[in-house]
Amino acid sequence: MEIQVIIPILYNKHFEEVTLQEYKARARPDTNIAVVSLGRGPASIESMYDEQIASPWILNYVLEAEKKAFDAVIINCMGDPALYAAREIAKIPIVGPGEASLALAYIIGHKYSVLVVLKKVIPRFENKIRMYGFSERLASVRSIEIPVLQLENEEKTFDTLLAEARKAVEEDGADTLILGCTGMLGVAKELQETLGIPVIDPTVASLKMAETLVDMGISQSKRAYPYPPEKTREL
Amino acid sequence: MEIQVIIPILYNKHFEEVTLQEYKARARPDTNIAVVSLGRGPASIESMYDEQIASPWILNYVLEAEKKAFDAVIINCMGDPALYAAREIAKIPIVGPGEASLALAYIIGHKYSVLVVLKKVIPRFENKIRMYGFSERLASVRSIEIPVLQLENEEKTFDTLLAEARKAVEEDGADTLILGCTGMLGVAKELQETLGIPVIDPTVASLKMAETLVDMGISQSKRAYPYPPEKTREL
Amino acid sequence: MEIQVIIPILYNKHFEEVTLQEYKARARPDTNIAVVSLGRGPASIESMYDEQIASPWILNYVLEAEKKAFDAVIINCMGDPALYAAREIAKIPIVGPGEASLALAYIIGHKYSVLVVLKKVIPRFENKIRMYGFSERLASVRSIEIPVLQLENEEKTFDTLLAEARKAVEEDGADTLILGCTGMLGVAKELQETLGIPVIDPTVASLKMAETLVDMGISQSKRAYPYPPEKTREL
Amino acid sequence: MEIQVIIPILYNKHFEEVTLQEYKARARPDTNIAVVSLGRGPASIESMYDEQIASPWILNYVLEAEKKAFDAVIINCMGDPALYAAREIAKIPIVGPGEASLALAYIIGHKYSVLVVLKKVIPRFENKIRMYGFSERLASVRSIEIPVLQLENEEKTFDTLLAEARKAVEEDGADTLILGCTGMLGVAKELQETLGIPVIDPTVASLKMAETLVDMGISQSKRAYPYPPEKTREL
Amino acid sequence: MEIQVIIPILYNKHFEEVTLQEYKARARPDTNIAVVSLGRGPASIESMYDEQIASPWILNYVLEAEKKAFDAVIINCMGDPALYAAREIAKIPIVGPGEASLALAYIIGHKYSVLVVLKKVIPRFENKIRMYGFSERLASVRSIEIPVLQLENEEKTFDTLLAEARKAVEEDGADTLILGCTGMLGVAKELQETLGIPVIDPTVASLKMAETLVDMGISQSKRAYPYPPEKTREL
Amino acid sequence: MEIQVIIPILYNKHFEEVTLQEYKARARPDTNIAVVSLGRGPASIESMYDEQIASPWILNYVLEAEKKAFDAVIINCMGDPALYAAREIAKIPIVGPGEASLALAYIIGHKYSVLVVLKKVIPRFENKIRMYGFSERLASVRSIEIPVLQLENEEKTFDTLLAEARKAVEEDGADTLILGCTGMLGVAKELQETLGIPVIDPTVASLKMAETLVDMGISQSKRAYPYPPEKTREL
Repeated sequence: MEIQVIIPILYNKHFEEVTLQEYKARARPDTNIAVVSLGRGPASIESMYDEQIASPWILNYVLEAEKKAFDAVIINCMGDPALYAAREIAKIPIVGPGEASLALAYIIGHKYSVLVVLKKVIPRFENKIRMYGFSERLASVRSIEIPVLQLENEEKTFDTLLAEARKAVEEDGADTLILGCTGMLGVAKELQETLGIPVIDPTVASLKMAETLVDMGISQSKRAYPYPPEKTREL
Repeated sequence: MEIQVIIPILYNKHFEEVTLQEYKARARPDTNIAVVSLGRGPASIESMYDEQIASPWILNYVLEAEKKAFDAVIINCMGDPALYAAREIAKIPIVGPGEASLALAYIIGHKYSVLVVLKKVIPRFENKIRMYGFSERLASVRSIEIPVLQLENEEKTFDTLLAEARKAVEEDGADTLILGCTGMLGVAKELQETLGIPVIDPTVASLKMAETLVDMGISQSKRAYPYPPEKTREL
Repeated sequence: MEIQVIIPILYNKHFEEVTLQEYKARARPDTNIAVVSLGRGPASIESMYDEQIASPWILNYVLEAEKKAFDAVIINCMGDPALYAAREIAKIPIVGPGEASLALAYIIGHKYSVLVVLKKVIPRFENKIRMYGFSERLASVRSIEIPVLQLENEEKTFDTLLAEARKAVEEDGADTLILGCTGMLGVAKELQETLGIPVIDPTVASLKMAETLVDMGISQSKRAYPYPPEKTREL
Repeated sequence: MEIQVIIPILYNKHFEEVTLQEYKARARPDTNIAVVSLGRGPASIESMYDEQIASPWILNYVLEAEKKAFDAVIINCMGDPALYAAREIAKIPIVGPGEASLALAYIIGHKYSVLVVLKKVIPRFENKIRMYGFSERLASVRSIEIPVLQLENEEKTFDTLLAEARKAVEEDGADTLILGCTGMLGVAKELQETLGIPVIDPTVASLKMAETLVDMGISQSKRAYPYPPEKTREL
Repeated sequence: MEIQVIIPILYNKHFEEVTLQEYKARARPDTNIAVVSLGRGPASIESMYDEQIASPWILNYVLEAEKKAFDAVIINCMGDPALYAAREIAKIPIVGPGEASLALAYIIGHKYSVLVVLKKVIPRFENKIRMYGFSERLASVRSIEIPVLQLENEEKTFDTLLAEARKAVEEDGADTLILGCTGMLGVAKELQETLGIPVIDPTVASLKMAETLVDMGISQSKRAYPYPPEKTREL
Repeated sequence: MEIQVIIPILYNKHFEEVTLQEYKARARPDTNIAVVSLGRGPASIESMYDEQIASPWILNYVLEAEKKAFDAVIINCMGDPALYAAREIAKIPIVGPGEASLALAYIIGHKYSVLVVLKKVIPRFENKIRMYGFSERLASVRSIEIPVLQLENEEKTFDTLLAEARKAVEEDGADTLILGCTGMLGVAKELQETLGIPVIDPTVASLKMAETLVDMGISQSKRAYPYPPEKTREL
């Protein structure tokens, strides 16, 4: 199976490499991963504004992915930018790490918390969770106050995630955690072992959901995400 | 008060003129209206894809409007494209006709229906209504199956709106109607008189909400819509 | 436009004067305000009991206002006493400051808190908010523990509002505030500037919503609020 | 146990007699029933307006009932007029037939419908059901289009109830019915037997809930329904 | 009226005696109580696992109770094990203390808390409350961390209940309490007097609801709880 | 990876064979499937009663599966009998086809319908969907009125599924379908192609979710599904 991962931010050699590596490490033997980053757009996605700036370019890659006969597309950002629009213009499954993680949280936990990068993005996440219909089991959205591009200071990231995770469990009643950024790579396992509750890594969640949809031969409903009418569009 | 109306579609002389005329006709004496259309983007907005293609250009005009000291911005499309992103990058009130109409429906009716252009856009509207938190009083979203750019066949548009409105009332229990496209200009009054129930025109709703917010000296909360962090963004 | 403001409490010269003054100060040039207080009823409204004692007399003034050709009626109390009954017996728009403020909170904020006078009224407000359908974005209802008739000690009122507002923001996640009594006059602006988030003054909210409805030519749906059947009624 | 039944409409000899008779017939041997009607108020309750006109006089009887050492009060109208206000001014349990019937529907059925007198009252019932928190299991509110004071044409009332009940079951998915007016006396049993699903008679429901609360030694929480602050009130 | 109380745990002489005594003490003069415990099953119910182990044996007693012409069955455990299945196989009312207590909380309070035995059972209770449709007025589920079989240390149980109850009121906004285990016998009244808010004893709640349903001649809807199709079943 | 599939009904050679075959056909190359049926329990599961009769024996197999070092367990019935109890007594992931299908419907559709075997089971499914928190996107639960053990008349089953599916789409607004019984084997693909919308086969859904959870190294949260306290239990 061929999966196109779209990293919806400006090309960043290091991030593209570690992302590709992570997807490959977690993919099934028969799953091939191709990664592409944006030529235009934002350096990272931390607002609705960033999403909107990134979206047209993400959508171009989605069109191309379908033409190139990929089996599925993953938009590699927890905010799922352009997810619904992408589903309109393609038949192949389009997977968002945010939505995929939420669906998994519903089948392993009672109440979940999402650990996001910045307080600023909490309303954005809460709005999406409500739009998706996943509010019923939400305990809280909590932030670690580390911008996306500084997440690689791994020790600080891990320690802060751990501290916020404990508050989510003790104060908010969470029993299941979702890492709130696809840039929080490689920490889920240790966090899960330290806390003793499941920690969902959105990168892996998106990969496994893509594999699942392709395996099952199902994709987004074209009645739910119909093709846009033909018309003049200038980008 | 100076209001910038952004028509989030490719420049269309006729539509820009009638839109400007409608806003001017309904504005208070001390309200000045300026209208601008997109140089790039879609010819009309009938999908999430259209929204995403339009959004970056809408946002540029929002930034400009604040620089030019406008008092408020209206994004003149029922789908409220880029609404939340626009609120992030500005302090002045950003008003969406969709959201404004829904808020008004809540204070004049018990259950409302939205009459949209195409069946294709129903999921998009239902998702936004849920994200906004306005599902509680929703009776139905119904379509008239007339594309945006053919709404000007006024007789057909009126007759089909009337027929669907009656179904909304009789079959879905609606007592209040919202016109589901800012291109359905000039029909609200007659529809309201024929049906005997209130019909909310989103164009006028957006204007009055903008005037209200400016009058009250309130605008979107910057804790709800915080400024995006500074970073490289290439459009 | 002629607006009848009904102050739903026993005549109180000072309160009637400051209320009239506030409405006039915030009205548009072409809006005329008339204020009337009750001859019978409660001295203030701080319970469902007070609402019920006030309601028949409010409703008489509503009937009269429509006869006198007013364009709209405002029931000047945050609890919106007799609001739904008033809409049944009139065609002209009836506006409640509570409901109007909530509708505005939905279009400028992500989560709102209401700052009410007494702990005792919290269940009453929460019940109305749920009945209206505005629970989805509610952060909290908090009280300042100052009875309505003592709100005029402005310094104490302001300081307590500020303290509770900060708790609403820090502890409950509110980003938008609603003053929970129409007697909290003249503090919204300073509170807003001090806190840096929007503060909705229900008095002004009711005025602007009344102006909006009259401007738009819409009013409560008579299918939602039908005329009561004719019958013997003795008051 | 002594129960005060307040019939919240103008004195109507026949209705008072049949109501008293029905309560006595269904009361436990040690339950005594006293019935009182209003000296002022509406001839029947079919709107929010009627409720507001009736409420002050209902509340007077509630105060008296507590003084006279009744053990509980029933406000004998499906719309539960003045219910929450009555609970504020008394310690003894105040029971509303509407609320009591809904609570019972929740423990015997999966989805319930309410059969009300007039289409006009549907929004009023839906609003109260939402305020009470009983929307989750609501199938529909349906009307038989017979005014309260004409319900005594028993054959027509029964036949129309039966016809609407069947629609509630077949079209709306109801499996449990609530009679939507305390004037629909003596039809529940036959309706239940004809339909083969439970039919809740609100008169009996209110009686049994009153007996239950007195037996259990519980009453409305005074934190939920606190005493109104002392103040001048002129009725 | 004859009521069969099924204690859904392994026979325990003391608990069976005090349960019988409590039911008899609170029953009406014409209500006869019979109590039966399980011959196989768990020693107490503190998990979904315990419920499943107990359920087949509970259901056998339900079948027997209907054959023996009992008028109603109470499954004497707050978790309502096998409640819905029991309703499928019987026509006589089946009452669960959990569900009965929740219905009563809805008509005496604004927000309720449930005080359960162990933190471990909180998700189980929250899930059932959501399934029943009683989440709207839920303040919190709190635990006293005393296992069912140690509740008889009455002083410790009372003190811990009191402490958690106070937190429910002060921190969670509860105004009404439900004891979360039918083993918390004989403490409701004192707790209620100490706290000044109503405390619902699930044992008594189940008894009064059973008496109410029998008195009213209503039972679970067989459309909501249809008889299981005939088939081979081996236990 | 080793997956234990528990068929929660009495041993039925044919059904066990086709189930094993279906799981093997859809499993990844490195996934091994073992199937086991019940020695005691019901012949099929079409009621809560059937679930309760099956549950203790299901749970025994769950305990055994963990002892035998299986990586995951699937309880092969759409009603997910004993699912939550099973999660309490095991660390390895326990997957239910019902819950797994619902989670997948949330990420490919806007509104889904479930096509169940009998009208009788509709309340049971609606209750579980609400308990799981998946009501938000539910269009309808519809039945084909074919008992589980007669599903093998494939033509009739397919035709009836197709007819009900069309009603779900046209009348209820569904855009995504879930087959409501794990006995509806081998029809999903053809149904999907005929209808042009995705059809989720619960058998395959459960398999892919089990593979996903094992791949991701996550399992049910033991805070959400804690081990039952030790105590005497006699089955």
